[in-house]
Amino acid sequence: MILIGMFDSPFVRRVAISLRLLGHDFEHRDWSIGRDFERIREYNPLGRVPTLVLDDGEVLTESAAILDWLDEVAGPQALLPAKGPERRRALKLMALAIGACEKGIIQIYERVFRPAEKVHEPWLERCRTQVHESLAALDAICAERAGAPALVGARFGQADISVAVAFTFLTEALSLPVSRYPALAAHAQRCEALPAFAEFHVPFFTPGSPAPAAA
Amino acid sequence: MILIGMFDSPFVRRVAISLRLLGHDFEHRDWSIGRDFERIREYNPLGRVPTLVLDDGEVLTESAAILDWLDEVAGPQALLPAKGPERRRALKLMALAIGACEKGIIQIYERVFRPAEKVHEPWLERCRTQVHESLAALDAICAERAGAPALVGARFGQADISVAVAFTFLTEALSLPVSRYPALAAHAQRCEALPAFAEFHVPFFTPGSPAPAAA
Repeated sequence: MILIGMFDSPFVRRVAISLRLLGHDFEHRDWSIGRDFERIREYNPLGRVPTLVLDDGEVLTESAAILDWLDEVAGPQALLPAKGPERRRALKLMALAIGACEKGIIQIYERVFRPAEKVHEPWLERCRTQVHESLAALDAICAERAGAPALVGARFGQADISVAVAFTFLTEALSLPVSRYPALAAHAQRCEALPAFAEFHVPFFTPGSPAPAAA
Repeated sequence: MILIGMFDSPFVRRVAISLRLLGHDFEHRDWSIGRDFERIREYNPLGRVPTLVLDDGEVLTESAAILDWLDEVAGPQALLPAKGPERRRALKLMALAIGACEKGIIQIYERVFRPAEKVHEPWLERCRTQVHESLAALDAICAERAGAPALVGARFGQADISVAVAFTFLTEALSLPVSRYPALAAHAQRCEALPAFAEFHVPFFTPGSPAPAAA
């Protein structure tokens, strides 16, 4: 199968990590939603990533829908609990993490897709508040779960992945202070040490940010 | 239970319609994400709607997560197919519909949360393209399914609801021409004639749009 989208997107990255943790190989198309908008739209009318092209040509879009299919194929290895309070709890943590990413991405789009004189500070401040409140709530949950094998239940799963990916993305892309969320930072650090996380980590870079140092 | 959020949000509305179709009663808090941001954040750190407060005080956030719980409770009456190609197809239609709503809402936020001189036309044009391409794809799918009892499989379900709610929202809130998407418009019209759809339909109104005529 083919995964379309850059790994600096938390939505693409959580899919890539989940694919790897579930033992799937895939080809990767490192296409940008800016530069490659037209090319992505040939697969997904919305021009969004991640988009996953299965071996029979079927196209799956939207990270939650892709993860849903992955879990169905995985059966008992599924990354999200199948039902009950653990599923609700995992979905809640994921909604906080992914919602914070969406509010972070709005801030990045404001910089990338808009000239400086069109930037509107009160709107950015509202989004910053939403990101902070969400990370603070996740930090409190991580503190409660310190020492537990996973954020939900006893088995490492999609809540762990999505929360860690969101935190890494937000702190790197928005230059947020990691130390403000110590329990969440500790959770992310444990996850980022895993090979599947390291494999799909790339430094965040946008046209509006300073170029990374040449290797 | 208590549903928080205004029915002019397609995310709130698809939850309200689903609750009703599945036979649930609920109280409603008609809180605005602008005016009532602080109040909503007491239940959901992100300050987003819909937020659903269950009878035991548990709080569910994010429409897809709420619908997931509703389907678990509904068992065989679930609005989304449990697995297989029909589930993938339904999730794909929902991703197109909901993604289009997100790109429509960005256009509305541009008007509501930002003074006119900060509006950036090229950014809006990108979002308009995304909405149109998504609606055109959904229109083609609706045309293929003309005469079928549902957009996916044989039973009316969440794909039907989300697609209709998205179309009504987008055409009303963005004043899009309904006639550009005839098969999609016919699908939405059939849905909107159902009592559960009519019950939760309110005219779209934002601070940036002309005030509705006084009753």
